[in-house]
Amino acid sequence: METFFDPKSVVVIGASNTPFNLGATICNMLKDYLQYQGAVYVLNSKGEAVNGYPGYSSILDLPETPDLAIIIVAARNVPNIIKDCAQKGIKRIVIESAGFSEGGEDGEAMQREIDDAARVNGIRIMGPNCLGTMSTRNKFCCFYGVNPSLVEMGQIFESPGNISYIIQSGGVAVLVMESLYYDLVGVNKVVSIGNKCDVDEADLIDYFQTDETEVIGMYLENVANGRKLMEAARKSRKPILIYKVGRTQAGAIAAMSHTAGMANNDSIFDCACKQARIIRLKSIDELHSLPKMFTEMPLLKGKRIAMFTNSGAFGSITADLLVDAGLQMVRLSPQTQEKLKKAGQVFNIKNPVDIGPAPPQTYLDIFDILLSADEVDGLLPLLSVWQPFVIDTLLELMKMCKHYDKPAAIYTPNAIAKSIAIRAKHRIPIFETSEQAVRALSVSNEYYESLLKRNFISKPVPTVNLDTKRSIIAATEVAS
Amino acid sequence: METFFDPKSVVVIGASNTPFNLGATICNMLKDYLQYQGAVYVLNSKGEAVNGYPGYSSILDLPETPDLAIIIVAARNVPNIIKDCAQKGIKRIVIESAGFSEGGEDGEAMQREIDDAARVNGIRIMGPNCLGTMSTRNKFCCFYGVNPSLVEMGQIFESPGNISYIIQSGGVAVLVMESLYYDLVGVNKVVSIGNKCDVDEADLIDYFQTDETEVIGMYLENVANGRKLMEAARKSRKPILIYKVGRTQAGAIAAMSHTAGMANNDSIFDCACKQARIIRLKSIDELHSLPKMFTEMPLLKGKRIAMFTNSGAFGSITADLLVDAGLQMVRLSPQTQEKLKKAGQVFNIKNPVDIGPAPPQTYLDIFDILLSADEVDGLLPLLSVWQPFVIDTLLELMKMCKHYDKPAAIYTPNAIAKSIAIRAKHRIPIFETSEQAVRALSVSNEYYESLLKRNFISKPVPTVNLDTKRSIIAATEVAS
Repeated sequence: METFFDPKSVVVIGASNTPFNLGATICNMLKDYLQYQGAVYVLNSKGEAVNGYPGYSSILDLPETPDLAIIIVAARNVPNIIKDCAQKGIKRIVIESAGFSEGGEDGEAMQREIDDAARVNGIRIMGPNCLGTMSTRNKFCCFYGVNPSLVEMGQIFESPGNISYIIQSGGVAVLVMESLYYDLVGVNKVVSIGNKCDVDEADLIDYFQTDETEVIGMYLENVANGRKLMEAARKSRKPILIYKVGRTQAGAIAAMSHTAGMANNDSIFDCACKQARIIRLKSIDELHSLPKMFTEMPLLKGKRIAMFTNSGAFGSITADLLVDAGLQMVRLSPQTQEKLKKAGQVFNIKNPVDIGPAPPQTYLDIFDILLSADEVDGLLPLLSVWQPFVIDTLLELMKMCKHYDKPAAIYTPNAIAKSIAIRAKHRIPIFETSEQAVRALSVSNEYYESLLKRNFISKPVPTVNLDTKRSIIAATEVAS
Repeated sequence: METFFDPKSVVVIGASNTPFNLGATICNMLKDYLQYQGAVYVLNSKGEAVNGYPGYSSILDLPETPDLAIIIVAARNVPNIIKDCAQKGIKRIVIESAGFSEGGEDGEAMQREIDDAARVNGIRIMGPNCLGTMSTRNKFCCFYGVNPSLVEMGQIFESPGNISYIIQSGGVAVLVMESLYYDLVGVNKVVSIGNKCDVDEADLIDYFQTDETEVIGMYLENVANGRKLMEAARKSRKPILIYKVGRTQAGAIAAMSHTAGMANNDSIFDCACKQARIIRLKSIDELHSLPKMFTEMPLLKGKRIAMFTNSGAFGSITADLLVDAGLQMVRLSPQTQEKLKKAGQVFNIKNPVDIGPAPPQTYLDIFDILLSADEVDGLLPLLSVWQPFVIDTLLELMKMCKHYDKPAAIYTPNAIAKSIAIRAKHRIPIFETSEQAVRALSVSNEYYESLLKRNFISKPVPTVNLDTKRSIIAATEVAS
């Protein structure tokens, strides 16, 4: 699988100098933006070079056998190209062309022809009807047509992260990538699998166990081999967040016209997800909004949440949401309330803790009192950034969360644009709504419990002296 | 009630030159940012002037009886001030001070004292524990402490709109106002009612029937007089969108510490809302995201929705959401499908209509084919702005919607920042997620049906000749 994400040489089949040629956009990206270090060949009827990459009119004429072939030609020409690739000894192929099983009977027949040729020759195929792969660390990307945002995309490659995406639709892949400009997502790899005639989501879940991936985000329109997917998911030691369309009949029919999805029974799929410990997403935005809770914060190891706000109303709103999500408004112990009283400026020492205009130290004191309290499993700070110092306290909060091994889902009830700017500049995992923050806590706990249930970790030993601050024993992680 | 929003003279009681004085922020706003044309007096112990407004140490010394008194002093001093106001003949008072019924028994006693003094003297009171009123058309605002964003606020006053907000919490009022910078909301009036010892949400719903208001947005933490609210709502000829906290016990308790809300039974409230045709919001963001569907688009008069996308996957995702919301993916008639086939570039002529790279005219043709189809009640365009011309077609779409008297809920599946910028610049009612777009259609239809059920409008007469394009007869509006 590694070869798909880190080929040392590639051939782009169908790239030419014709205006609007899609293969050329792949060449431009590799050369101009990624300074891809491997060899690149192009194939077209004239055998012409594209953006300095040497051109050929037959695969058999290539001076070497490339690690990877990227095909972006009319569907009807694909079967013959596959045969040539086989003859040349190419073992990895990305078919980006559309017009196969999603397009009716003729397309299905062609797809079968391709499958057979691949199987006989030991070739692994990604697609058809896909964008292929992107790897930030390897500075490789074979997505076509993403030119207008390429300059911005550069930032994705400059700061690789630990989230990997498996996305059936190219359009959604691009949407998710666009969201990376403003959300706190560090990308490791993105793969668009399209009709997935060979390589599928389960293969990729297995593969992402072996690399830098920490969280797997998925978008699926159909599941061809449910058993294989669920087996891969059950074994996964990394959280899997999945958004699947086709929940309703109308959605399933719409998906069929797009990537040839079959109408899977949604309630069966839902059950299977629960068993396989897959976290099912409620909206497509959660693909980019939730992973930061896993990459930037410890897991939530219980359901008892303390809220801390400088903006009264949000305590009430969010208490409703917490209960809806199956979490609890923790009843703060008399000791904790006593400490809060001493911190000063506190309007309400019960949960939600509510403060008026207070200096930075008060914020830090309250963070520490709540995170160190034995009865508190996690924190929900609902803090308006009414003074710039609030941002500094949030940076300290992130350190405290690591120290106490308890998470905080931060929401800053200011205008969205301001919060997004703060998040991007200071790399603070800020959620855009209180719904998102509560959801992040809920999902974090769901994943923690799935680790326990699968015996991937053992339950933390309760501390003997309940008064001993900072004595919380972290969960002993069996997982790497 | 008008006097609260358009006083010809005011006294700010508690404004002084002490650093961080909150009353002074009201004076600064009236003078520096709003160039308020009425007379402003200030009252403080030294009788000192504030920002050029003359100061007095006793209300009785004021040279005239102001239309409105704004009180922002410690709670314990309020009862005596009310008595002075009564003696001076002041009939309208906004009490912004906190520390009344939300703060325990002493506060409650004080609040009763104020209520009595007001009743005896025929004074109407707004608050306590509130921000008071803002009116864009009258260029009046008595909110305290909003200085840092005042310059931006100027834009709200420069382009008045037709949405009015009744918001119990000051914090939420400020949040909603901040959201106006980036969402498509034209504000008429905003009022923060706090503990609402006298003027309440029902009084304001009645009042908003008489002015430029087209949509009423509300945030409530408690309902003191449910019968009065529901009666006002039933009579309202303008849609009422309400977010109420305290759905769960935890939320109700949290609300109590904030604005002295009583734990109302939520399921009873929910039932009452349905009967009174109040639209209950699912998140606080809907306070700013939904009104544009009412102010910028015709109402949705049926449930049959056509989707149109240039980004395949979104059709499937949104079809699921439509069904969840109780709307229908319309089955396009053979005639409509035939017309779509002729439009060219269409991958899928069934719903969701899916197109590839196409010129602007194709977009316009498809808008017209779908909106003019008798079987279609509303449109859900899911259009990526892959070329700038897509924005121009959206501007045309808005005109077509008015022509055919059918709405479109527009979603542009590009990165949120880009969509927000387009929305602000071109004033196109773009929703930020497909969930929001579907929700907007659903709410629009809910309100349309409530107008029918209350006999505020009559059902449109079906057209005789079903083939006659542009023959849709608009609902005869009884309401103004």
